[in-house]
Amino acid sequence: MADEGFDFGRYRLRETTTPTPSDIEIASAATPLGIKTVAETMLGLSEDDYELYGRYKAKLSEKLSMSLGARAGAGGRGPTCDATAGHGYYVVTAGITPTPLGEGKSTTTIGLVQALQAHTNARAVACIRQPSMGPTFGIKGGAAGGGYSQVIPMEEMNLHLTGDIHAIGVATNLVAAAIDARVFHEETQSDEALWKRLIPKKKDGSSAFSAIMFKRLKRLGIDKTNPDDLTEEERSKFVRLDIDRERITWRRVVDMNDRFLREITVGESPTEKGKTRKTGFDITVASEIMAVLAMTTSLADMEHRLGAMVVGPDRQGGPVTCDDLGVTGAVMALMKDAIKPTLMQTLEATPVLVHAGPFANIASGNSSIIADQIGLSMVGKGGFVVTEAGFGADIGLEKFVNLKCRKSGLKPNCAVIVATVRALKCHGGGPPVTAGKPLDHSYTNENVDMVRDGMCNLVRHIENTKAFGIPVVVAINAFPTDTPAEHEVIRELSIAAGAEDAVLCTHHAKGGAGAVELANAVKAACEKNEDCKDFKFGYDTNLDIASKIEAVAKNIYKASGIELSEKAQEKIALYTKQGFGDLPICMAKTQYSFSHDQNLKGAPSGFTLPIGDVRLSAGAGFLVPLVGAFPTIPGLPTRPAYYEIAVDAESGNVLGLS
Amino acid sequence: MADEGFDFGRYRLRETTTPTPSDIEIASAATPLGIKTVAETMLGLSEDDYELYGRYKAKLSEKLSMSLGARAGAGGRGPTCDATAGHGYYVVTAGITPTPLGEGKSTTTIGLVQALQAHTNARAVACIRQPSMGPTFGIKGGAAGGGYSQVIPMEEMNLHLTGDIHAIGVATNLVAAAIDARVFHEETQSDEALWKRLIPKKKDGSSAFSAIMFKRLKRLGIDKTNPDDLTEEERSKFVRLDIDRERITWRRVVDMNDRFLREITVGESPTEKGKTRKTGFDITVASEIMAVLAMTTSLADMEHRLGAMVVGPDRQGGPVTCDDLGVTGAVMALMKDAIKPTLMQTLEATPVLVHAGPFANIASGNSSIIADQIGLSMVGKGGFVVTEAGFGADIGLEKFVNLKCRKSGLKPNCAVIVATVRALKCHGGGPPVTAGKPLDHSYTNENVDMVRDGMCNLVRHIENTKAFGIPVVVAINAFPTDTPAEHEVIRELSIAAGAEDAVLCTHHAKGGAGAVELANAVKAACEKNEDCKDFKFGYDTNLDIASKIEAVAKNIYKASGIELSEKAQEKIALYTKQGFGDLPICMAKTQYSFSHDQNLKGAPSGFTLPIGDVRLSAGAGFLVPLVGAFPTIPGLPTRPAYYEIAVDAESGNVLGLS
Repeated sequence: MADEGFDFGRYRLRETTTPTPSDIEIASAATPLGIKTVAETMLGLSEDDYELYGRYKAKLSEKLSMSLGARAGAGGRGPTCDATAGHGYYVVTAGITPTPLGEGKSTTTIGLVQALQAHTNARAVACIRQPSMGPTFGIKGGAAGGGYSQVIPMEEMNLHLTGDIHAIGVATNLVAAAIDARVFHEETQSDEALWKRLIPKKKDGSSAFSAIMFKRLKRLGIDKTNPDDLTEEERSKFVRLDIDRERITWRRVVDMNDRFLREITVGESPTEKGKTRKTGFDITVASEIMAVLAMTTSLADMEHRLGAMVVGPDRQGGPVTCDDLGVTGAVMALMKDAIKPTLMQTLEATPVLVHAGPFANIASGNSSIIADQIGLSMVGKGGFVVTEAGFGADIGLEKFVNLKCRKSGLKPNCAVIVATVRALKCHGGGPPVTAGKPLDHSYTNENVDMVRDGMCNLVRHIENTKAFGIPVVVAINAFPTDTPAEHEVIRELSIAAGAEDAVLCTHHAKGGAGAVELANAVKAACEKNEDCKDFKFGYDTNLDIASKIEAVAKNIYKASGIELSEKAQEKIALYTKQGFGDLPICMAKTQYSFSHDQNLKGAPSGFTLPIGDVRLSAGAGFLVPLVGAFPTIPGLPTRPAYYEIAVDAESGNVLGLS
Repeated sequence: MADEGFDFGRYRLRETTTPTPSDIEIASAATPLGIKTVAETMLGLSEDDYELYGRYKAKLSEKLSMSLGARAGAGGRGPTCDATAGHGYYVVTAGITPTPLGEGKSTTTIGLVQALQAHTNARAVACIRQPSMGPTFGIKGGAAGGGYSQVIPMEEMNLHLTGDIHAIGVATNLVAAAIDARVFHEETQSDEALWKRLIPKKKDGSSAFSAIMFKRLKRLGIDKTNPDDLTEEERSKFVRLDIDRERITWRRVVDMNDRFLREITVGESPTEKGKTRKTGFDITVASEIMAVLAMTTSLADMEHRLGAMVVGPDRQGGPVTCDDLGVTGAVMALMKDAIKPTLMQTLEATPVLVHAGPFANIASGNSSIIADQIGLSMVGKGGFVVTEAGFGADIGLEKFVNLKCRKSGLKPNCAVIVATVRALKCHGGGPPVTAGKPLDHSYTNENVDMVRDGMCNLVRHIENTKAFGIPVVVAINAFPTDTPAEHEVIRELSIAAGAEDAVLCTHHAKGGAGAVELANAVKAACEKNEDCKDFKFGYDTNLDIASKIEAVAKNIYKASGIELSEKAQEKIALYTKQGFGDLPICMAKTQYSFSHDQNLKGAPSGFTLPIGDVRLSAGAGFLVPLVGAFPTIPGLPTRPAYYEIAVDAESGNVLGLS
């Protein structure tokens, strides 16, 4: 059976080189196991549980947590919400407020599972997000970890993977095409002509609604099943979605850093009869369908969410949905394989589930619920799932708790908060850190006082996390230029702030062997908190929208209050009226400060948080208050990363990724 | 060994139902073999030769024809150009000038290989194009064959398949993003600033060109390797591509029928500083990268072609290429798996290679050279590869000969021309046939004279094909409303026109069993023409551009001559000056007539063919004379096919595709 087949500790790194080679050098030198071996020998899965996508990737059935649960019975594995009842420990990796260089959350997630499985004989699975391809070709930086803590093959991870982002892209663009075509057809046809085309007569003179049309009929309060029975007025209501073309919120997407698509005018061909419209593209990972994928729990749930997505208001201010457009089934057909997480492996052959990759600023920023559920069922009791929450803990972990856990019913046994000397110095008064520019000497020479001054940031993240009832282990992600005195002050003050432990990690340089102490600290924290009895959400969803925003602003960011723009107030009133007031909120805020001002480092408080606008993600299931403006599609620099990328025509290997 | 493992005739259809059920009903009721079984048991491939993509699709190594050739030695299989020297017979399926309903070329291709393999004990492989997803959701009509002659699973075939079109889409859009970003950076930066960013100093103060930069340096005639050695003038030439932003020909793509993207204005966000530009999207299959995929023969060849693609002229009228942009390697990284054909199967388990799907009007309209080469190596001597050429033989087969065979060196042993009573009646004076409207009664009742009158069209296709030195077998694709007298007149006049044979086919209703006579006729024709000694191209590429266009217009279309617009003349002069005068031509013409006027049915002659413009596909390797205007992205009708499409949330099965 599965548990017996789980092959611990066999695939440790044989050796590591100092100084650490580049990520691509390490990844290319590694020989991954066939993913079939990972699935069958290590995880005990049967052929029906997974499908191969090439030699090193497999898609897992989205129902796998259910079927593993059923196989193991009540005493074994199963998708319950409590580590005592059969599934594994649930660990979330979060971070301090980062510098633009990133502080190594993904690397720590991978290093930790390598340590757990290959060095402490525990079953472990990492759950991480699929990276967008845009940044891969733009400004360097893969998302497969780094050094000796990576997911391999890294080029598969950073390029197409198993096509989920492509599926989301085409699905999003199908909805967009459906909107513009529908508006065009409604503007150029009579009710009668629309009816004749939407409900065509069959050869025998009869006609019928297609299945999805009943969803619109239901929303309209029409319970007739024979098209011939509709009154003229009902027909008119049925055929005219009456979308307010000036207020369409749905945008097209592309998985590319293409700044010239941020704002565009469409419909300029003469065939569109002058019906131009201003709109724009987002990067695919910023789409609502990506957010839906991260939040969904089953095909049936996904169908409901996709159908509920609102593309904009009609002229009376009512929401127009994908169900109204009749496109939900086609979107489902495009997304039916994307709902299946992709199984990969680390450099030490630890199983990794890669699934969903919603933007952390305007969406939930966490990998999928389905992958976490499957992971917990696969590792079984005593095993560990380590899942990563994007950005700093004020954003990723807050959303993990208030959005993801609220939906999944899962509770984390412990949180790992990743800190670096570099970021702490930045919060302790160090000069600004900019990507692509050399670091100031204060970052590369010992400065214990600066680290101590910056600890206010980490301390607040620890306190916030503990306020959710989650024990904290601090992972000090070591850099070669750090000194023991600097590490010691982090350790001391973290424990003083209530962390269970604070341990030095060298997994970037050493692989799992460099995170054994972290693994032991996580184990101890989880075992101490088996029942997650103190876990609690940050607010009740039945509060009004403004109060929910205020709760996050005051309790997590330590603002003195919020200031809603006129537009935000209007939107809140609209969404409340439309029946969306009970949704939880997904803050869109800079990751570089607790506040809305990215220059306010450390632990600012007493500021007023301005809310400029609020957006609706009815399918994903949250409202998005905008704290400032965020580019939803990046641009390419003068010398993009693609200058280094090539394929060896002989071997087919990809070169130059980083 | 491979040949022994080839398992003939075992997977015939058990039964067929009359009247023929819908395509999706037949496809859903079928149980495909695991594609592993097809690859290993039927084709004798080893695990290294293929990679699974789910249970029913596999990607084959693009080098497979080489490795099979090497394994079999000179006496066995191998990628030679001559059926006598080891590989199989090469059969191309073409059609008469079609109605908008299509005359069943794909279905006949599938039916024929089913007949060959399951009913006449011959090894057979079909090579077909990957369909675009746009039409799947727009106006009904899959591209996986029909009735009892289909590729399964049809939803895999019609949706993402193995991601090749997605890869082409993102690669095309990467080039587009690179163009606009580069123009923007050049317009907003000094030579000095561009140089500093393009050739950044390393920590030690040194700097170096990336590998791809040497391609631009070479084009500029600069053979220095150390950036410090370049003069100021050379630096300026190097950093400024100086793209003429008003004349950029590269367009973005989306795999969707999104008419509002035909003409758009980009760059309207304030971040782009007012540098707006008019451009548009094509459907992905109309892209040059798709054409490159169809025409390439290896990774090294593809790299050369992708790098040579011209995105537009610089301000001095010189071509700007992907190599100049530095983006070729990244495009290769995106395309490295797309070069591998996808193995699927028919309803009777015949192997099918699905690869590339270039538009037949503005591109080559034939599936890939690589797939055909692999197919020929796999079936070996005495086996058959049946490959399909899009549209009527005046377009698809002409391009098959003059573009595809010219590049591959392969020669067809025989052509199958598919004809229907319906299309012949249309050419014989029948009223117009329109998709979505009921057929006039003249099409559903016997009218032998009308068929006889329409035979002029088929006769000309037979004569044209024979003029290339290719023997013709006519496949009469039977419809239930046809009569024996109508079929007889087709048979008689086809043979009188020089066809080897003309046989009735019922593979739509009966599967392979309905195409046994066709299979035997094809076998006989191939055996009679083992050496392809009469095969010849339609023109020499060293003729000037206008003469090549004239050759096709006069010899194939029977025009009296051509009329070049001023624009076309300018372009011809430009391309000749740029050194592209030796490329073959890829006519962009309506498929509904031999002429440029789709209303001229039958076999018109004596008209003057107007050439409005000529485009350059330097990477694909051809010039595209435009005979009229073609929408390069379709639109959605009022009731798109997506209204019927759904996913069963319990089983995950896709419903409603057609």
